[in-house]
Amino acid sequence: MPDPHQLDALLRPKSVAMVGASADVTRIGGRALRHLKEVGFPGEIYPINPARSEVQGLRAWPTIESLPVVPDCAVLTLPAEAVLPTIEACASRGVKGAVIFSAGFAEMGAAGAELQSRIRNVARKAGMRLLGPNCLGLYNMHANTFLSFSGIFDDVKGTAGRIGLVSQSGGYAGEVVKSALDIGLHFGTWITTGNEVDVGLGEALQFLVESDEIDVVVGYIEGVRDRDSFIAALATAHARRKPVILLKVGRTEQGAMAAASHTASLAGSDPVYDAVFERYGAYRARTTEEMLDVAYAASLGRYPRGRRLAILTNSGGIGVQAADFAADEDLVVSPASPALQQAIAALAPHGATENPIDLTGQVANDPPLFARALDAVLASGEFDMAYCNVGLIAGLPFIRDPLLTSMQDAANRHAQATVALSVTAPPDMVAAYSNAGYICVREPARAIAAMAALAHFPAAWDRALPGTTALNDVPRISAGSAFSEKEAKALLLQVGIVSPAEYVATDRDSAMAAASAIEAPLAIKIVSPDILHKSDVGGVALWIHPDDAPERIERMLREVAAALPDARIEGCLVSPMVAGGIECIVGINVDPVLGPVVLFGLGGVTVELLKDVATRLAPVDLTGAIEMIRSIRSFPLLNGYRGRPLADVTALAEAIVALSRFAVANAGVLTSLEINPLLVREQGIGVLALDAVIETRDSEAAASDRQ
Amino acid sequence: MPDPHQLDALLRPKSVAMVGASADVTRIGGRALRHLKEVGFPGEIYPINPARSEVQGLRAWPTIESLPVVPDCAVLTLPAEAVLPTIEACASRGVKGAVIFSAGFAEMGAAGAELQSRIRNVARKAGMRLLGPNCLGLYNMHANTFLSFSGIFDDVKGTAGRIGLVSQSGGYAGEVVKSALDIGLHFGTWITTGNEVDVGLGEALQFLVESDEIDVVVGYIEGVRDRDSFIAALATAHARRKPVILLKVGRTEQGAMAAASHTASLAGSDPVYDAVFERYGAYRARTTEEMLDVAYAASLGRYPRGRRLAILTNSGGIGVQAADFAADEDLVVSPASPALQQAIAALAPHGATENPIDLTGQVANDPPLFARALDAVLASGEFDMAYCNVGLIAGLPFIRDPLLTSMQDAANRHAQATVALSVTAPPDMVAAYSNAGYICVREPARAIAAMAALAHFPAAWDRALPGTTALNDVPRISAGSAFSEKEAKALLLQVGIVSPAEYVATDRDSAMAAASAIEAPLAIKIVSPDILHKSDVGGVALWIHPDDAPERIERMLREVAAALPDARIEGCLVSPMVAGGIECIVGINVDPVLGPVVLFGLGGVTVELLKDVATRLAPVDLTGAIEMIRSIRSFPLLNGYRGRPLADVTALAEAIVALSRFAVANAGVLTSLEINPLLVREQGIGVLALDAVIETRDSEAAASDRQ
Repeated sequence: MPDPHQLDALLRPKSVAMVGASADVTRIGGRALRHLKEVGFPGEIYPINPARSEVQGLRAWPTIESLPVVPDCAVLTLPAEAVLPTIEACASRGVKGAVIFSAGFAEMGAAGAELQSRIRNVARKAGMRLLGPNCLGLYNMHANTFLSFSGIFDDVKGTAGRIGLVSQSGGYAGEVVKSALDIGLHFGTWITTGNEVDVGLGEALQFLVESDEIDVVVGYIEGVRDRDSFIAALATAHARRKPVILLKVGRTEQGAMAAASHTASLAGSDPVYDAVFERYGAYRARTTEEMLDVAYAASLGRYPRGRRLAILTNSGGIGVQAADFAADEDLVVSPASPALQQAIAALAPHGATENPIDLTGQVANDPPLFARALDAVLASGEFDMAYCNVGLIAGLPFIRDPLLTSMQDAANRHAQATVALSVTAPPDMVAAYSNAGYICVREPARAIAAMAALAHFPAAWDRALPGTTALNDVPRISAGSAFSEKEAKALLLQVGIVSPAEYVATDRDSAMAAASAIEAPLAIKIVSPDILHKSDVGGVALWIHPDDAPERIERMLREVAAALPDARIEGCLVSPMVAGGIECIVGINVDPVLGPVVLFGLGGVTVELLKDVATRLAPVDLTGAIEMIRSIRSFPLLNGYRGRPLADVTALAEAIVALSRFAVANAGVLTSLEINPLLVREQGIGVLALDAVIETRDSEAAASDRQ
Repeated sequence: MPDPHQLDALLRPKSVAMVGASADVTRIGGRALRHLKEVGFPGEIYPINPARSEVQGLRAWPTIESLPVVPDCAVLTLPAEAVLPTIEACASRGVKGAVIFSAGFAEMGAAGAELQSRIRNVARKAGMRLLGPNCLGLYNMHANTFLSFSGIFDDVKGTAGRIGLVSQSGGYAGEVVKSALDIGLHFGTWITTGNEVDVGLGEALQFLVESDEIDVVVGYIEGVRDRDSFIAALATAHARRKPVILLKVGRTEQGAMAAASHTASLAGSDPVYDAVFERYGAYRARTTEEMLDVAYAASLGRYPRGRRLAILTNSGGIGVQAADFAADEDLVVSPASPALQQAIAALAPHGATENPIDLTGQVANDPPLFARALDAVLASGEFDMAYCNVGLIAGLPFIRDPLLTSMQDAANRHAQATVALSVTAPPDMVAAYSNAGYICVREPARAIAAMAALAHFPAAWDRALPGTTALNDVPRISAGSAFSEKEAKALLLQVGIVSPAEYVATDRDSAMAAASAIEAPLAIKIVSPDILHKSDVGGVALWIHPDDAPERIERMLREVAAALPDARIEGCLVSPMVAGGIECIVGINVDPVLGPVVLFGLGGVTVELLKDVATRLAPVDLTGAIEMIRSIRSFPLLNGYRGRPLADVTALAEAIVALSRFAVANAGVLTSLEINPLLVREQGIGVLALDAVIETRDSEAAASDRQ
């Protein structure tokens, strides 16, 4: 467990030296000083400026060395070349933390990266924590601390919201704060990490997740540099049931290319991020709007316990739209019970009662009708959440006040209920509904998506993380090993995944022996540790009659040797053709940043062309493996689709679990592993690995990584 | 071509009788009268109220009959039971149009539907056009006409925007107008069609499409009742290159169920709507926000000629996001040429030049830099559109004015360019950029989606609609016909789609003859007009050796006869097993509302489970068929994926064209047709229909439909 006070020198400093403080408040060094002064910082501020004895009304000091006391934190608004000497001065004085705005480091190439690493070394030796360089700094309104020259200061001064932001982009972090203000959302703690010479995304997230002043954590990610601190922060959030909403860019190939040229960091594969977020229950937003909608909804603190949605409107057309949006989000618009329908019909005789519930224009004549219907819906216990579309009547004279009052009362009567509301009314009316506890988003699609996101959180928090069970029973492999198909299958057998009976034939005699032992149509494949893609070199023959096998084997040995004269050829693998069952793919990829994931999909083109694949962080437990299997769109094929037999999903899940544990035990050595196909046979009959490829890192790389 | 003045009595009336006019402006009849008075209606207004001689300062009349002149239009704010006599009075006076707000008709069940159809008959006989019942009426600011009691009146009074709305939901139509005002968009003509006893969606759309006062048409659809007028309106829009943006609900199964219970209309199948929209180039929006974003973007009238997007930012992180969003919308973030990159580098030495282009924080020091970079990008001719993220600096002192001025100048220099812009600034600043021609949407994802929608329009308008070629050469079938597989294949041969050589065997002798003629592994299938799903009753045997065929055929005849004693069995179809090629599905569905569509997908589960299917309105031409083929995600399988041979896409496209023409010629009779599998063989070798099922309507239904 990381030390929760690691970042206090940066985020809760008792005194701050502003190095490069300027009297000109249009300049960066002047702006940063003004912000810290005006935010009501309770500690001492020491402007450092060799040319002046006073800056913005505060006594100034020429250097860090000249200060009468040691400040907790130094803020550097200096050219890149002045940073290292200043950090050295801070280090020797015992300053605990520094914020470096300056650009001109790793983002500018090798020389900058070298300078950056010298700064890191100085700080590490002194135990000083650094934020930046090339960042916009931070603020923490809960400690009246604003260490940034960002133009958002005047917008956020005097607020201390319970939402926290960490962003790898400073410019974007400012945009988020501005956009949030439009929906009444205030970020209380705000951290931009820039080049992350020391403090990275993970530690910044950890601070927010552990802060008792922050209820909802929002993050913007271009690429994680330090896996362990990132995972630790997400695990803490999971344990504390604190919602984390992340916007990770580089979702698409085009975006990933742009990200690679923008950041110096190795970004990791995007689907692996999804697997990480899934494991720890972080919500991934696609857009800033979505990120803020979900943060806003979460800030109200009312989480649904399931996915059953009631829709209430005063216009049937909008109810139909809402039903579409609910389906888009996998929410269930389940029909109201006969008793509830009767209650609704008594309120709105010409309305629709089943769900979507249409209270009709009658609401305009009798505004409290809406709240009475909502009361009935919430009291019924038949739904986990409700969406109300009240529309423009919420702003009309004669209607607005009785409508609002009755809806406020309804919200009070159901203080735990998750209810979103679309009203088309002036901002003060929207704020009144929001203050009553309604999630107010005008666009129905966004309101419903926000509720679906809320439903995601408790489901994820309730799911225990896979235990870090001992992996003593798992076989280990070494870096640089090459595996023939036979060796790969032997290894799989050690983790409990069987392959068909098979023999290695090296000449006519052993071929005849194998063929007569199997007595069925045969599959024949070349065995060589040097050949990964056997069919490319004529090393595969299928459905061979046992009588024809000896001749076919001799021919294969001859042809492959001719094609690849340098390959070590150990013979031909002879096995029975196995009919029936469904061909699947189960694999392991070890992401260079985020570690091993396990993949599952059907054979053929569904994984590659149709992207019908499930990816989870390794290890997975049996429940997780079954969820993976059920999550692909092709799952019906394993589940009796059109009269097919039920496939052995349990055996498949066990194979996934076993592989995922193998991957974790060998994460430093393994690069990838693929069983393709894994034949999944009828329920009770199990699975068979028909082919397997294992790739490992070369031993030098693995060794240098361990250093 | 429909008469363009059909709806003038409703939308451009010279005089209006307000039946049920009230002095109380909080009541419906009072509100509607106030709106018409205050909108500046240039013609005579005749309040009809038997209890008063004056209403709201206007002379009132007791009845329609008592009026001194015949008004163009009557507006009925009356209880349902008073509607029929009033319409009869209007009809006998020669009133040309009526708007009926009253509810209590078809939406309330059979009695209401009966009353509604009597009203229709009266109006039809008199040549009077009706809007409603159960609607919110209409307004046409271009004729100072407001025939609605909707609460939006005070918001839209005095505006006459060049955007038109038709909506099948009155309540929703009001919400759209209010939401549009927030982004500065004004609907000039607004029509709610309600129960559509007479004027439906199609005619209302036609009015807007033909109006020279309307540039952009927006529509909300729950279900089309009259195919022909709807298609005609879309065809006119295509011919006039006028953008049509539609939100159609019931996209999902859940939404479609809600729609079915909400509207009395038969909605048609949702994918068929997509096929109709695709054909005529209408843009389908998913949400109100998207619909209004696209309408707003289209209202600026700057359409891109392709899909190459330049991204310009002053924060690299937002550029990466934008690249993701562009990929989501199939826009290409192509790299800038070396010359352009050099020009950008000269402007912003520390920026990114390739695309996304990052001008860095330097813009804050030199605001016109952004416009200079945009100039270079637009002048290069390397892009079809540009997205600029300027962010919050657009609202900062010292920056806002020089930034705006320089960007206005750039927009003027490139008057045809499509450029979207995200600024985080007060509304007046946003309006200034919008007035300069920038598509101003703050959320990058929405800005980029709106530009992608704009790119869609000219591409669709440039594509000629398939000609209504003579279908004399197409064979006709009759209602109630049943087709055996053999008959179905014979019919397919008539349209040019061949099947393998085949023979019908009825006993041991004919089986032996067939087997010896084919001399290859055989496929054997039962032939019966009464059996559609042959494999379910043991009526299919594959890969049978010719020597074994006679015995196998005898057994099949015996077993099927035992399973289905009443089925007429004509024998067994004996054909060669055909190896190689890729199994596809080509089919026809005839939608009860929107007519025949043609479908294409790969065999197996990709159509049903993975929804990898292309659906187009029939007929399609060769270009359209090739587009269909290329549009599925599995297309690479036909196109040399992983060393596979190229498939005969031309022959496949020709088969699709032929089927689609067959469907149009037999639309009244055919229900569905499926060739599954259609074996698509190597380039130049053609396609083979291996199985086919044709279903027709029963003859009574087809006959009653013709009446």
